[in-house]
Amino acid sequence: MNIHNVADYLLDRLAEIGIRHIFGLPGDFNLSFLDHVINHPIIEWVGCANELNAAYAADGYARVMPAAALLTACGAAELSAINGIAGSYAEYIPIIHIIGMPTLHSQKERELLHHSLGDGDFRHFAHMAKEVTCAQSSLTAENAVAEIDRLLVAALYQQRPVYLQLPCDVADAQIKSSSGTLAFVQPLFSPLSLQAFIETAHEKLQSARKIALLADFLADRFGGREALNRWLPEANIPYSTLLMGKGLLDESHPMFIGTYMGAASELSVKECIEEADTLITVGVCFSDLTTAGFSQNIQQDKCIDIQPQQAWIGKTVFNQLPMAMAVDALHQLCNSLKDQWQPTAITCPYLTRHEHSVLDQNTFWYHIQHFLRPEDIVVTEIGTSCFGAASLNFPAECTFIVQIHWASLGFSLPAAYGAQLAQPQRRVILLIGDGGAQLSIQELGSMLRDGLKPIIFLLNNQGYTIERVIHGPQQRYNDIPIWDWATLPKVLGKDKSLLTRCVTNEHQLQQVLTELENCGQLAFIEVILPKMDIPKLLINVAKSIEDRNKAT
Amino acid sequence: MNIHNVADYLLDRLAEIGIRHIFGLPGDFNLSFLDHVINHPIIEWVGCANELNAAYAADGYARVMPAAALLTACGAAELSAINGIAGSYAEYIPIIHIIGMPTLHSQKERELLHHSLGDGDFRHFAHMAKEVTCAQSSLTAENAVAEIDRLLVAALYQQRPVYLQLPCDVADAQIKSSSGTLAFVQPLFSPLSLQAFIETAHEKLQSARKIALLADFLADRFGGREALNRWLPEANIPYSTLLMGKGLLDESHPMFIGTYMGAASELSVKECIEEADTLITVGVCFSDLTTAGFSQNIQQDKCIDIQPQQAWIGKTVFNQLPMAMAVDALHQLCNSLKDQWQPTAITCPYLTRHEHSVLDQNTFWYHIQHFLRPEDIVVTEIGTSCFGAASLNFPAECTFIVQIHWASLGFSLPAAYGAQLAQPQRRVILLIGDGGAQLSIQELGSMLRDGLKPIIFLLNNQGYTIERVIHGPQQRYNDIPIWDWATLPKVLGKDKSLLTRCVTNEHQLQQVLTELENCGQLAFIEVILPKMDIPKLLINVAKSIEDRNKAT
Repeated sequence: MNIHNVADYLLDRLAEIGIRHIFGLPGDFNLSFLDHVINHPIIEWVGCANELNAAYAADGYARVMPAAALLTACGAAELSAINGIAGSYAEYIPIIHIIGMPTLHSQKERELLHHSLGDGDFRHFAHMAKEVTCAQSSLTAENAVAEIDRLLVAALYQQRPVYLQLPCDVADAQIKSSSGTLAFVQPLFSPLSLQAFIETAHEKLQSARKIALLADFLADRFGGREALNRWLPEANIPYSTLLMGKGLLDESHPMFIGTYMGAASELSVKECIEEADTLITVGVCFSDLTTAGFSQNIQQDKCIDIQPQQAWIGKTVFNQLPMAMAVDALHQLCNSLKDQWQPTAITCPYLTRHEHSVLDQNTFWYHIQHFLRPEDIVVTEIGTSCFGAASLNFPAECTFIVQIHWASLGFSLPAAYGAQLAQPQRRVILLIGDGGAQLSIQELGSMLRDGLKPIIFLLNNQGYTIERVIHGPQQRYNDIPIWDWATLPKVLGKDKSLLTRCVTNEHQLQQVLTELENCGQLAFIEVILPKMDIPKLLINVAKSIEDRNKAT
Repeated sequence: MNIHNVADYLLDRLAEIGIRHIFGLPGDFNLSFLDHVINHPIIEWVGCANELNAAYAADGYARVMPAAALLTACGAAELSAINGIAGSYAEYIPIIHIIGMPTLHSQKERELLHHSLGDGDFRHFAHMAKEVTCAQSSLTAENAVAEIDRLLVAALYQQRPVYLQLPCDVADAQIKSSSGTLAFVQPLFSPLSLQAFIETAHEKLQSARKIALLADFLADRFGGREALNRWLPEANIPYSTLLMGKGLLDESHPMFIGTYMGAASELSVKECIEEADTLITVGVCFSDLTTAGFSQNIQQDKCIDIQPQQAWIGKTVFNQLPMAMAVDALHQLCNSLKDQWQPTAITCPYLTRHEHSVLDQNTFWYHIQHFLRPEDIVVTEIGTSCFGAASLNFPAECTFIVQIHWASLGFSLPAAYGAQLAQPQRRVILLIGDGGAQLSIQELGSMLRDGLKPIIFLLNNQGYTIERVIHGPQQRYNDIPIWDWATLPKVLGKDKSLLTRCVTNEHQLQQVLTELENCGQLAFIEVILPKMDIPKLLINVAKSIEDRNKAT
């Protein structure tokens, strides 16, 4: 590294951890840093249409890359982005949020600057960021090397966003030298703990006849994915994921039984998971939306529960045990036991086509099932689209992007932009309702500007159907303005080449899907669906939410 | 009042303080409250396209109404809105932000709910809100009457946003009774302080020959406006405002000398303000953008400075002196002195038409000047449009809406929506650049849905021209995607009646302005302007920002 100044040091470190793009908007306190971004040999600038969208895009990027970087000005701009950052915090996505600040002199003098609250105190926003980031810093020429390294390491270790204030004069400040390559932190590991875990697990598994495995998104975030995918193809154990962990495991394998959603699961999935003698859970996090209101019926004393840094068997905890090691240990253990386990005869529930040609949710998802290819990145919005996608069986190596825990409406379109930019060689398929698309539509313009080619299905069911199902089906507050969706993409990408279609029946949908096989340009397909028709899995989920929101 | 439950009590109180609309989006923790909104006889629901836009719209509404109300769900939704709330806090706008929360039971049980950070702690967002609101509360059936009243009073007294968490089960909870009409807090008043102020002011004014008055936005927020407008028509004192206070005083009066902007002012304005023997300042707040980088040359010992709750004469402070009383006292005092003051011969600088027909900023603002009518509401974006509007002389009773201190790009379009909804009988003229319009464009759909008829000028100069002037004129980061602006409104208002035009020369602009005199529908006029052409006043402002951002 040839280090001259703080800005370049930061950019070199971002490149070192695998970041290739910075998302954001220009603002008067980050323009000089932006000059360094433009001139950097590895990092590229990605201008977004607003700051929240930029944060969502960075989040989508980091779901298929080691991490992402976001640049905003301070005050107004950073607060526009903070909901995106909070979502990354809630769902364990590492984002380096860089905030262009006024000069150190202006801050010290407590000047009444624009983008501030006018009281001379520039710390308000760091206080706010503290609630939704895992580390914060305000850079100076003196602390820059140590603090940049500290924050990057924290983001990667904790898989969460960090908050880095860069005063505009500090960006250009000279620094002495780097501290060599970045020193990553490894999770604590205790061989004794591992040994105890193996012994206890052996006891547990030896006596069992029916075994099952349930994984969730934390396995993806904390290194369990690879270990699981080494093991499961040969494991002879039926397995499932929660909806947040969908795509984590190979769904084309015969032992994949479908998505587990508590009482909203297909009966065969529910029985297999809940009636196992021993259930192995990896990176599992039961939340209201992934369990239809905590309706999972799983007894702790039947579980071997593997979490990022520790494992539990029944009520016994094994600390200092990184996830991948625990999974590898089970892998070895189970190889010697698997012959004594009951053979499983569960077939994954598969979408079937109803005997009519009405274009409804069932018909739509049936055809999407057949449209999917290995390695697709499937992005869905919180709403009918993510619960519809829950019924899909993914081909091998697909990635599923959804924000169910934080559940910020409008997330998916910019997230699809970020993911497509990160992985231009993979097919990104965005499935989004009209309600969700209105919140962040301007990022479609950025996709078109950058020549990206995602396939977008806009499920037009005239408003917030997921809310209608929860409460107020006919209420005006669940309506939205009527847009001319089929024309919209041409307006946000003036003179850009793209494919737009509106389909209203099954035959048209089939034609379009054939056309998309060799499309070669961004495709925007409006799919007209019945206003109150919803995917089967969503009915139970919505019912449980409405019940739980009532006075008790 | 016929009180049954918390939701209706809150809605009745909002109506009592003059609120007629609630802005926001439905979310699963606020749907039952929304049923009460829909059924309320006075309050109307205004669904917006996203939460930040809703907060901006509420802010615009509160700039022409006593206050505004905003409803979101908790977590993701409230954080999407928080930048809008922070802007209202920075610029003294009272907003009642109501947040639909999970049931008290769910919060107490620390459930892993969607829209939460997943750690069982539901207080994170109230901690964040504390930085940008003046009072916070979490309602229960027991505290609702007292807490609702406390927050509404705080919002109105401090002219700032308040944060009100409403758990979904509490909305429907029964309460006993109201506490009568709302008891407003009056500012503290000391007759002795007033007497001392009058005596000291008399001394100061008696010896002066050249007097001038400078007002700013705090005069509008804290009751000084009416007192000033009673006084100034007969005062024989030349007067000006800062840009944030534009429209506060009658600009059609011969004693109005133009907008004061420190070193960026017209010379005649600068001299009149800075060379007065005594300068009366009312609700003035010097910030970097309104003074071209603190270039005001005003000596404290020449000033009589009236602030919301106190006044200063030189270094002497007079506490417990509400603004309107101090202004009224000066009014009386000056009547007896004004004959001895030097007559002023300052003509307000007036936009002149250059001798060419190129459509540039100068030509554009010249024609806008002649297009304005009394009582127009003029809304501009932080960028070329607000600095262009600084040169306008408003007809009587015009209102100027701009967010210069907080300076959140994207504010003005939703703010114009809120203002137009509040005052449907007045003409709202929105002047916005293409850079700013991309951030929050979806609210145009809401305006069309609601049949509103603002006049929108989209100043298309191909990107962030204000940033180009500060730094990086040719840099790619100041470009934005190219949209087909003239088609866009028809897409966001399918089948709605509206007028769209694109003008590229002066003749077309004149034709369109004639057409707009009797338009009767929403008008969206794209005005093609040179990429690097900027209003004269902005040159100095931008130069000062770039200089101040450099290392010292």
